[in-house]
Amino acid sequence: RAGMAAGGVLLTGSNRGIGLGLVKQLLRTPRPPAWIFATCRDPAGPRAQELRDLASKHTNLVLVELDVADPSTITKAVKIVEEKLNGTGLNLLINNAGIYNSEASLERVDAEEMIKTYKTNVVGPLLMAQAFLPLLKKAAQESTEKGLSCSRAAIINISTMLGSIEKTPQCFFKPVISYRCSKAALNMLTRCQALTYREAGILCVALHPGWVKTDMGGQETGWSSPEEKDFGCWLMRSSP
Amino acid sequence: RAGMAAGGVLLTGSNRGIGLGLVKQLLRTPRPPAWIFATCRDPAGPRAQELRDLASKHTNLVLVELDVADPSTITKAVKIVEEKLNGTGLNLLINNAGIYNSEASLERVDAEEMIKTYKTNVVGPLLMAQAFLPLLKKAAQESTEKGLSCSRAAIINISTMLGSIEKTPQCFFKPVISYRCSKAALNMLTRCQALTYREAGILCVALHPGWVKTDMGGQETGWSSPEEKDFGCWLMRSSP
Ligand SMILES: NC(=O)c1ccc[n+]([C@@H]2O[C@H](COP(=O)([O-])OP(=O)(O)OC[C@H]3O[C@@H](n4cnc5c(N)ncnc54)[C@H](OP(=O)(O)O)[C@@H]3O)[C@@H](O)[C@H]2O)c1
Ligand SMILES: NC(=O)c1ccc[n+]([C@@H]2O[C@H](COP(=O)([O-])OP(=O)(O)OC[C@H]3O[C@@H](n4cnc5c(N)ncnc54)[C@H](OP(=O)(O)O)[C@@H]3O)[C@@H](O)[C@H]2O)c1
Repeated sequence: RAGMAAGGVLLTGSNRGIGLGLVKQLLRTPRPPAWIFATCRDPAGPRAQELRDLASKHTNLVLVELDVADPSTITKAVKIVEEKLNGTGLNLLINNAGIYNSEASLERVDAEEMIKTYKTNVVGPLLMAQAFLPLLKKAAQESTEKGLSCSRAAIINISTMLGSIEKTPQCFFKPVISYRCSKAALNMLTRCQALTYREAGILCVALHPGWVKTDMGGQETGWSSPEEKDFGCWLMRSSP
Repeated sequence: RAGMAAGGVLLTGSNRGIGLGLVKQLLRTPRPPAWIFATCRDPAGPRAQELRDLASKHTNLVLVELDVADPSTITKAVKIVEEKLNGTGLNLLINNAGIYNSEASLERVDAEEMIKTYKTNVVGPLLMAQAFLPLLKKAAQESTEKGLSCSRAAIINISTMLGSIEKTPQCFFKPVISYRCSKAALNMLTRCQALTYREAGILCVALHPGWVKTDMGGQETGWSSPEEKDFGCWLMRSSP
């Protein structure tokens, strides 16, 4: 299949880094989604300038305020998205927003840092899925496709190799305890979502996006920028 | 090797369930530890009656107030334990305290429940290890043993099969999302602790205790009571 041809796609943390890269790639696909809901914490602020520039050129790109750590903004975002979709469903929810504290060694990490990271990286994606579930179910029901796929109905939780317990010994270059624990929990959440929502026709996957040059990822030589990185392969991904 | 022969062992949540069962088994080992620090939230309250009865008969059993979700009680407990140990180290820390909400399905679980469970089941064990690290290091240094073992210096984090992402499809009988996510994160924490503390001679393991008849575990026929259950095998465990 060429391109997405989805009715609606929503992303969190889409004002910079991988989120912004995904928005740009979605806009460039052969058959771009009817609606791309690019959410971020401060769509009117300086950090969303690039997103606003894109929105002025693409009528299918809608900026929506959403802080994954603030449930009231999630509720408001659902209303806005519902209105735009005008009775149709949401095909794809990409939980991309995440935080990372490079100082969080076993010695230095504290309760506050652990909780803050869990709230953004795990509780956020959980609340997002709960809030957008009716719209995802609607998309799955409306779809003529059988089986599970991103163009029918899906939740993609952006995880990381650093969340793999098995791979920890190979990638313990930075301890980032709060981040690793949160992403291991996100992987578990995703497994539970996959088992629970498959009957409703919703694909749920946790993905390691690869190493990407962003504020979080750093500027390692040899890594791709969020624009170059080939995300297309997993946006097209179907369930195993 | 027969028995423990450790200088000091500390347990959290030792007033009922598996924690209390472990205390009883430690008291019964051929060479019981010089000190068993049985900590719980309310050592003077009605739920610690059995523990107080035991302490009146065993001079090596010391009751200490400790709420793993309240860092100030951890700090106070370290002081008490240090005083009793009188210059020697702590050989074994068993992070057993944990909470479980059987109602926490994907539909019903909320942010508060997720955070509360993470605080007790993950942040608690993290803070405990940080606080008792100097005493554990001391035990490792003082020991004549080589290699990693529970009688030299160790942290045992009581986990559960429900925290295994791989095993989730086989044991999804109850969703308990907040619990599963917290224990997956605890497994990751333990892996990081194992990698970090092995140089100091401290063994760190996460263990599934088996299914045990407790308030949390329920009263399934065929399951062992905390007193019958053979915990001895892993109290003697050495690193792989
Ligand atoms: N870069 C890599 O190599 C790499 C590797 C593996 C996994 N990942 C994962 O990929 C995802 C994106 O990473 P990135 O490298 O693009 O990170 P980044 O450059 O640091 O960007 C993070 C994004 O998340 C947003 N965000 C943070 N907290 C938020 C909240 N409470 N509500 C809404 N948005 C929030 C940020 O918004 P503000 O501008 O408002 O702060 C920003 O848009 C993360 O989940 C990360 O764990 C990245
Ligand atoms: N039972 C099983 O079949 C089973 C299976 C797998 C894993 N586990 C694990 O084994 C451990 C013990 O489980 P259990 O079955 O004995 O549970 P339980 O019967 O519910 O007892 C839990 C214990 O943890 C204590 N606790 C809870 N929150 C605490 C806090 N903030 N600070 C200090 N203590 C706290 C409780 O103290 P209070 O009396 O003050 O509430 C109680 O002593 C848990 O980590 C559990 O996840 C149990």
